[in-house]
Amino acid sequence: MRDFSLSDTIAAIATPPGEGAIAVVRLSGKSAIVIADKIFRGKMELRNVSPGSAHYGRALDERSDFIDEVVATVMHAPYSYTGEDTVEISCHGGYLPSTRILNAILRSGAREAERGEFTLRAFLNNRIDLTRAEAVADLVASRGDLRYQAALNQLSGKLFQRLAPLMDSLRNILAIVEIGIDFTEEDIELTSRAQIAQDIKILISDLDELASKFKMGRIIKEGYRVAIAGKVNTGKSSLLNKLLDSDRAIVTAIPGTTRDTITETIAINGLEIYLTDTAGFRNEIEIVEGEGIKRAMDVIKATDLCIVLLDPMSGFTDDDRRVVTAVGETPHLMVLNKKDLYDEESLALARDQMLMQVDNVISALTGENIESLKQMIYQRAMGGEGNIGRDVTVTNRRHYQCLIGAIEELDAASSCGAGEEILALHLRLALNHLGEITGEVSTEEILNSIFDGFCIGK
Amino acid sequence: MRDFSLSDTIAAIATPPGEGAIAVVRLSGKSAIVIADKIFRGKMELRNVSPGSAHYGRALDERSDFIDEVVATVMHAPYSYTGEDTVEISCHGGYLPSTRILNAILRSGAREAERGEFTLRAFLNNRIDLTRAEAVADLVASRGDLRYQAALNQLSGKLFQRLAPLMDSLRNILAIVEIGIDFTEEDIELTSRAQIAQDIKILISDLDELASKFKMGRIIKEGYRVAIAGKVNTGKSSLLNKLLDSDRAIVTAIPGTTRDTITETIAINGLEIYLTDTAGFRNEIEIVEGEGIKRAMDVIKATDLCIVLLDPMSGFTDDDRRVVTAVGETPHLMVLNKKDLYDEESLALARDQMLMQVDNVISALTGENIESLKQMIYQRAMGGEGNIGRDVTVTNRRHYQCLIGAIEELDAASSCGAGEEILALHLRLALNHLGEITGEVSTEEILNSIFDGFCIGK
Repeated sequence: MRDFSLSDTIAAIATPPGEGAIAVVRLSGKSAIVIADKIFRGKMELRNVSPGSAHYGRALDERSDFIDEVVATVMHAPYSYTGEDTVEISCHGGYLPSTRILNAILRSGAREAERGEFTLRAFLNNRIDLTRAEAVADLVASRGDLRYQAALNQLSGKLFQRLAPLMDSLRNILAIVEIGIDFTEEDIELTSRAQIAQDIKILISDLDELASKFKMGRIIKEGYRVAIAGKVNTGKSSLLNKLLDSDRAIVTAIPGTTRDTITETIAINGLEIYLTDTAGFRNEIEIVEGEGIKRAMDVIKATDLCIVLLDPMSGFTDDDRRVVTAVGETPHLMVLNKKDLYDEESLALARDQMLMQVDNVISALTGENIESLKQMIYQRAMGGEGNIGRDVTVTNRRHYQCLIGAIEELDAASSCGAGEEILALHLRLALNHLGEITGEVSTEEILNSIFDGFCIGK
Repeated sequence: MRDFSLSDTIAAIATPPGEGAIAVVRLSGKSAIVIADKIFRGKMELRNVSPGSAHYGRALDERSDFIDEVVATVMHAPYSYTGEDTVEISCHGGYLPSTRILNAILRSGAREAERGEFTLRAFLNNRIDLTRAEAVADLVASRGDLRYQAALNQLSGKLFQRLAPLMDSLRNILAIVEIGIDFTEEDIELTSRAQIAQDIKILISDLDELASKFKMGRIIKEGYRVAIAGKVNTGKSSLLNKLLDSDRAIVTAIPGTTRDTITETIAINGLEIYLTDTAGFRNEIEIVEGEGIKRAMDVIKATDLCIVLLDPMSGFTDDDRRVVTAVGETPHLMVLNKKDLYDEESLALARDQMLMQVDNVISALTGENIESLKQMIYQRAMGGEGNIGRDVTVTNRRHYQCLIGAIEELDAASSCGAGEEILALHLRLALNHLGEITGEVSTEEILNSIFDGFCIGK
């Protein structure tokens, strides 16, 4: 279980592992400067330097053995990331310098920080609300520009600023209702009752609007999943590789959750796209067998969009029909591949033979119309709303669930009839749900689940 | 080709790629602070802050779009790592924040730094000599304590301090000889000639001693290579895994240069050991076939020590004989495995049947005597000299070659007889070789080959 007290001093390596030019060890807490002084030898003791200053020196272990040349930067509470006294020790990169410095610090009285504990302390010390804290983790994990922009918006407090007046309004309504409880029923004027109902209605509508952004927000934060399906030899792997080639900058491989599937990430117009090749259809024998179909079906069920690849030469075969059946209701694009092999006339004929609407004709080999296919994928992801990504404030599933919870309580409040106590209870629960978003209301369980998703040293 | 001028300002991400709490972008050069000001918005402009101070602010791109919250630390020339004006911008970790900040900086007038260019500038600006610069790369790459200690010694200037008086002495001898050239031969007293010969002799002896440390130094810096050989089912993989298990902290996998071989790193008493399993002997059929033998032979030829694993049950078989033949003159340890399966008596009998000295009897399954085997490996690596590692100052192949070059010239000087001009030439060449170690003499070729081995941002 996490330690939520702020009494001890925490330390961690804040830079990624691996060879790099520099590494940074971070210390935060009441004794941060005193502990840092135990391992730092510079011109001055760190306890005597001015806040916000950086100092060259040597890091020594407790036996005074030289560890590395370092630069220590001292920040005083509350003017630091955590709101506590903080020392950042920058040393040479690589495994040993930072590890040895951290170990010396831990032996000098600091405790190893848990995941996200620096940011947790920033929250507990009221430096940032919970939406900003969550934005930090999201910023670090972003690979696509839209997600990054959404995280930056949240880090800038846009969600918090959107929620704050709604919560104020809810608090006002609650205050009026609670005053009503202390008086007899006739004291409350009818206009006031009508006003309360009206105010709740406006609140529900505002929260509904916010919650509706999550549809887009989820795609921005969690990525848009695209599966490539098709019978054998339609060029699925070639298409996957061509899409990856077009965006080498952020290509990363993620181990497939389903055996034999590969998921790779690309960005289209800044949107993170998770591309999966459906291995289940790789082999004609597998298509008619349970296991192959099952695996492909798992991928297709979990995807946001399925690209069904077709081969102009073969016409629409029984194998194609099986693929289309498997795709079922999943949103999909029908794409004719191997454009390079045929003239316009043959392709027109092939399109006709497919007996269903063909959305695009591409060549995975030459790359022709790949860009147009990518824009089709983007349009499907964005539901045709080209620029909406910039304004989306709700990207986080937890926030969405809290919003839905608040809306449900307000709906209940709207329809609960006469009893002021019940009305007040629903309003209070709605306020609680919104408070869980900003962190005004938080439990150790909520905090654990949020900060466990952070990296060490953050 | 590298740019050795110091006129432009260089920038790079100084932290390893990957998700981490923070990333650091580094700028160095005449315009470092001016360029940083173009993307930084804080309470003050960085050109107005006091040197060695850290400032919270926002990083913006050239369209004033918000990139990230940052802390910028400003150092003024010559009080920085490079000896130039330097700004370090610390931002949130992950791929996008640091990449976007770097790109904004590059668009604002900085040039992307090449590998090791910050350290190269530290050298070119006379902040550090070449031995210290090389120690920096070595410190970052160290996985074992001995190599780390050797790098720290070198970073502290121990090699430089050892060489400086020898170079002074050589300069003195050269001066006396050069004075002699300007006078007639009879002006030089016989004592002076004898003294020169004597001084050169002392110098050779000192340099010889230094060069002799390289035998150990090479092992410390480049690691000690150990191959595990043996016929099939002697437990080679189990032994490899047991050795790795005993030192999880620094275990890393390195792609094998030979197909089907795996090389892993462990540290024994702080010495880096590269362990390779010889796949060639994995399969009995392969042993008698050319390809299998060839692959295993390649590994065995390149290794410092070969562990030959034997199975007590089978006695010394023809397959064992083939392995021993393949090992040939390579230093080796004969090790009986599967101690857990037999009692003392059977093991004693098995040892006798091996017809050759068995160095250890272990159980790769239970781990019995694994520690003793590790100490045997360490003893072999160190040639029985337990503590020598702490003092070794020559770990670098380049330094060794320069030392050998200097010794050869001094040997030539010793035996060149009468001509002062020739004597002076040999002495000057010897001095040149030593100057190449410290960097007093350097060519672009030497500098390129050294700094190309650094990482970006160092």
